[in-house]
Amino acid sequence: MSKMVKLTLGYLGEKYNGWQIQKGQAHTKTIQGELQRAIRTLTGEEVQMTAAGRTDAGVHAFGQVAAFLTQSTVPANRFPDALNCILPDDIIIYRGELAAKGFHATKDAVGKWYRYIYYLGEQPHVFFNKVAYKVHGLLDIEAMCQAAPLLEGEHNFKSFCSVNSLAKNHVRNVRQCQVKKDGDFLYLDIYADGFLYNMVRIIAGTLLSIGRKKMNAFEIPQIIEGRSRFLAGSTAPAKGLTLIRVDYQKPDQFFSKADSLDMPSLFY
Amino acid sequence: MSKMVKLTLGYLGEKYNGWQIQKGQAHTKTIQGELQRAIRTLTGEEVQMTAAGRTDAGVHAFGQVAAFLTQSTVPANRFPDALNCILPDDIIIYRGELAAKGFHATKDAVGKWYRYIYYLGEQPHVFFNKVAYKVHGLLDIEAMCQAAPLLEGEHNFKSFCSVNSLAKNHVRNVRQCQVKKDGDFLYLDIYADGFLYNMVRIIAGTLLSIGRKKMNAFEIPQIIEGRSRFLAGSTAPAKGLTLIRVDYQKPDQFFSKADSLDMPSLFY
Repeated sequence: MSKMVKLTLGYLGEKYNGWQIQKGQAHTKTIQGELQRAIRTLTGEEVQMTAAGRTDAGVHAFGQVAAFLTQSTVPANRFPDALNCILPDDIIIYRGELAAKGFHATKDAVGKWYRYIYYLGEQPHVFFNKVAYKVHGLLDIEAMCQAAPLLEGEHNFKSFCSVNSLAKNHVRNVRQCQVKKDGDFLYLDIYADGFLYNMVRIIAGTLLSIGRKKMNAFEIPQIIEGRSRFLAGSTAPAKGLTLIRVDYQKPDQFFSKADSLDMPSLFY
Repeated sequence: MSKMVKLTLGYLGEKYNGWQIQKGQAHTKTIQGELQRAIRTLTGEEVQMTAAGRTDAGVHAFGQVAAFLTQSTVPANRFPDALNCILPDDIIIYRGELAAKGFHATKDAVGKWYRYIYYLGEQPHVFFNKVAYKVHGLLDIEAMCQAAPLLEGEHNFKSFCSVNSLAKNHVRNVRQCQVKKDGDFLYLDIYADGFLYNMVRIIAGTLLSIGRKKMNAFEIPQIIEGRSRFLAGSTAPAKGLTLIRVDYQKPDQFFSKADSLDMPSLFY
């Protein structure tokens, strides 16, 4: 009897070439590769994992969801402890649940919350260096706060999609998009039903251009309308991006854990 | 003309064998060794650094202070940028100032603030795994909060000093000692005019024993009175400890940046 196990996991993306195993690149480390190897060690099975968001190289996750079919007799809720003993320190399984046999981590997701963290301190923060992107110079934060909500709504986001994307349909529904300052940290929180390739990082880079007064907040609707990658700002570095949560049912609030999520200007 | 340069720096202790260069162990990495090497690269000088707190292997710092005499023409306030380009990512210089020629980072310090971070979550926190000690099982946090202030005052802290210490005088003045819960994190903040070898880690371990009901809060005065290491609890792991700040003048508040210092149960 096989069963579908759904895992909720976190990882630091720094040392990995993203979520997905790259064909013909068996030597590069990926989150999927590490997980499938750990499951092979634990159960002897060669499973095929699917994840809610195929995060890029260097992108982090706190609430990534991955699922796999297994014949193993290990109860679903025992997988976190068992796998955490095998996995490297920078990949941690938080939850293991039984899911319906037809569950698909990618296709069944109704929404995802990504956070991009900018760090405004003069020197890198020794504790948050790996998960925040240190920004040089002063930013017009108010302009960034004004620009973010202009991305909300159902739009064709082709301007915010990598030219390397193979997507045919560029329409996505951004439910909420906001920028918030917290001490020396600045967060871009974005919740959407789905994301295009590099979409959050291009939005993060565009907002940075607005913060640097190279663009204006009121240009956002024109950038969307223009449907060309060249209208938007550059792609912000992967290290600032974290997949916070994946929802399989519409949540009451898109950033529902926002209060406990605030990152203070820790140790200053 | 030589000048005394005072640096304020932070580091992740994980990969280092503590602050101090160990004689006859030139192959082990130390913070002092990395700093002196970076200064040699920058100025060509072989300097001798002194630090406020000679942190143990694995202990972190956010506001460590180190000083050295240099003939270099580099202005003191340019050292952070210049050294950060040379140093590894897990050592960061925050401030460079000119100090009096006779300044001694260790002897002139009037007080230091250490924080021990316990993490109470069921699985390790992927973002704070390196700087917090994950505690297994439930704790009586109220008892820990009651016990901490019983360590305040001028006492002979021999019971809270490693048996390997060479110190002759075990009297230290703990100005403030408190335990505070913040989501899934628990902080032990301790401010003293000076610390004995392993003192904070032994206090952290003793408070943990109290949290686990192996000891009682009211035993603290007896443990102090007994002046024997064997009366206190075990030495808590280095990874939970951070040197937050060193003062060369008495501060208005011992934990004066406590509010901005709070670590939330980030990403939950």
